[in-house]
Amino acid sequence: MKLLRYGPEGQEKPGLLDANGTIRDLSGHIADIADDALTPESLARIAALDPASLPAVPGTPRIGACVGHVRKFVAIGLNYADHAAESGMAVPAEPVVFNKWTSCIVGPNDDVKIPQGSTKTDWEVELGVVIGSRASNLSEAEAMAAVAGYCVVNDVSEREWQIERGGTWDKGKGFDTFGPIGPWLVTTDEISDPGNLDMWLDIDGKRFQTGSTRTMVFNVAALVAYCSKLMTLLPGDVITTGTPPGVGMGQKPPVYLKGGEVMHLGITGLGEQRQQVTRA
Amino acid sequence: MKLLRYGPEGQEKPGLLDANGTIRDLSGHIADIADDALTPESLARIAALDPASLPAVPGTPRIGACVGHVRKFVAIGLNYADHAAESGMAVPAEPVVFNKWTSCIVGPNDDVKIPQGSTKTDWEVELGVVIGSRASNLSEAEAMAAVAGYCVVNDVSEREWQIERGGTWDKGKGFDTFGPIGPWLVTTDEISDPGNLDMWLDIDGKRFQTGSTRTMVFNVAALVAYCSKLMTLLPGDVITTGTPPGVGMGQKPPVYLKGGEVMHLGITGLGEQRQQVTRA
Repeated sequence: MKLLRYGPEGQEKPGLLDANGTIRDLSGHIADIADDALTPESLARIAALDPASLPAVPGTPRIGACVGHVRKFVAIGLNYADHAAESGMAVPAEPVVFNKWTSCIVGPNDDVKIPQGSTKTDWEVELGVVIGSRASNLSEAEAMAAVAGYCVVNDVSEREWQIERGGTWDKGKGFDTFGPIGPWLVTTDEISDPGNLDMWLDIDGKRFQTGSTRTMVFNVAALVAYCSKLMTLLPGDVITTGTPPGVGMGQKPPVYLKGGEVMHLGITGLGEQRQQVTRA
Repeated sequence: MKLLRYGPEGQEKPGLLDANGTIRDLSGHIADIADDALTPESLARIAALDPASLPAVPGTPRIGACVGHVRKFVAIGLNYADHAAESGMAVPAEPVVFNKWTSCIVGPNDDVKIPQGSTKTDWEVELGVVIGSRASNLSEAEAMAAVAGYCVVNDVSEREWQIERGGTWDKGKGFDTFGPIGPWLVTTDEISDPGNLDMWLDIDGKRFQTGSTRTMVFNVAALVAYCSKLMTLLPGDVITTGTPPGVGMGQKPPVYLKGGEVMHLGITGLGEQRQQVTRA
């Protein structure tokens, strides 16, 4: 299934994309694409619905982040060897884990705002993993059962605050609008192998990132298991799994967003995002 | 005012501690000590209530974390020069910001669980700042108006995961039970100077930490303003502001929790916490 949230910011309703690309209103069945609506039991109930029995949503509403009430937005760094190289950093021996403040989450096509004074705002197309079950201390063999589905994430990053201002990367990763998520939460039944998905990102029509989850250093099962040892994962938590090469910081010379650009990105089977870049 | 949450985990009700130390039930007036109940307007409405008109809560219920639905648990590192020295780290030129996963939050007297396999679980008594207003890009002069109040935080830390496993500190800071908060959210009217509060922490009756917020490197206004430039702060967000000297890592030789200890800690005017240390 392709689940989504539509409507004005803060008032999103839950929906389902049917086989014809029509949004069907799920609000008669679940309150939101969030929390316990993401458990295996709940997803099975939604899957049993006849999409044609759900009201068709008219027009072209705004699409919100595909998960609501995200309690943890966990991010993995340097998870593609080529990207580590372009960043001038070593391939890590175990996953690099950092945080994106949940207040950075926006819809897939909402504006991305360059923070005041920033000169190094950058892009990162990533595979997002949406957790569906409360889980801790998982083995890799157990990990995939805790996953509700996948989505596109743009892990927007301010490199000066991330790297040059001391302390952790968290400073540069969680500005408002730095977390476009969606358009869809695609449930695991539609993604036979999350380790074989092509991904790309264009700035103003020029291709900057071309990659595949095939070249991840740590795969989805390894990452979910690893994170579950550090914290209890909860339904609606999102783990974004790192970016392939082609970020602005890795260009020679580096290229950063100035405002006015359009970012366009996507992952096979998970849909596309398009953000206008503005200045906060 | 001293606001608190009482009752079983996950079912806490909002309360107010009256001048006699009796818990008064606030659930007829607000749903929780959380979100918009923390705004200046809401706190003024609560302050206008006659505590004697609120139902007295019988017995001695469990005390929960003094804030519910915390969306961001922001932490500041190395904010006491003496603690930076004992940690073998430089006093930072600007605040070190890291994250505690919100699923680590527990009540002030709940058990603290040493993670599986951990040999370096440590304590940190800290002043917690609870945000009351949606705020971003604050000046230091504006920052204090965004604060609802203060609380005691034990920033429990696993030093191997924090420091030796690569990536950011976040790995070692957000295990389940690593965030006891409370007992009370003490509103700003009761704390004339958050920069002059004594703080202490005992392990099994032995004093390990003795300090005062007087020796902070960056004061509360500076920290709130700084964080508000990195993210939009929301009512119920908690910023924990760093620890004075005396952590286990700083002992010669280092002393870490093994399980079975009792941690007892407090800050002038903000109450005390007492945690039994167990093994997960």
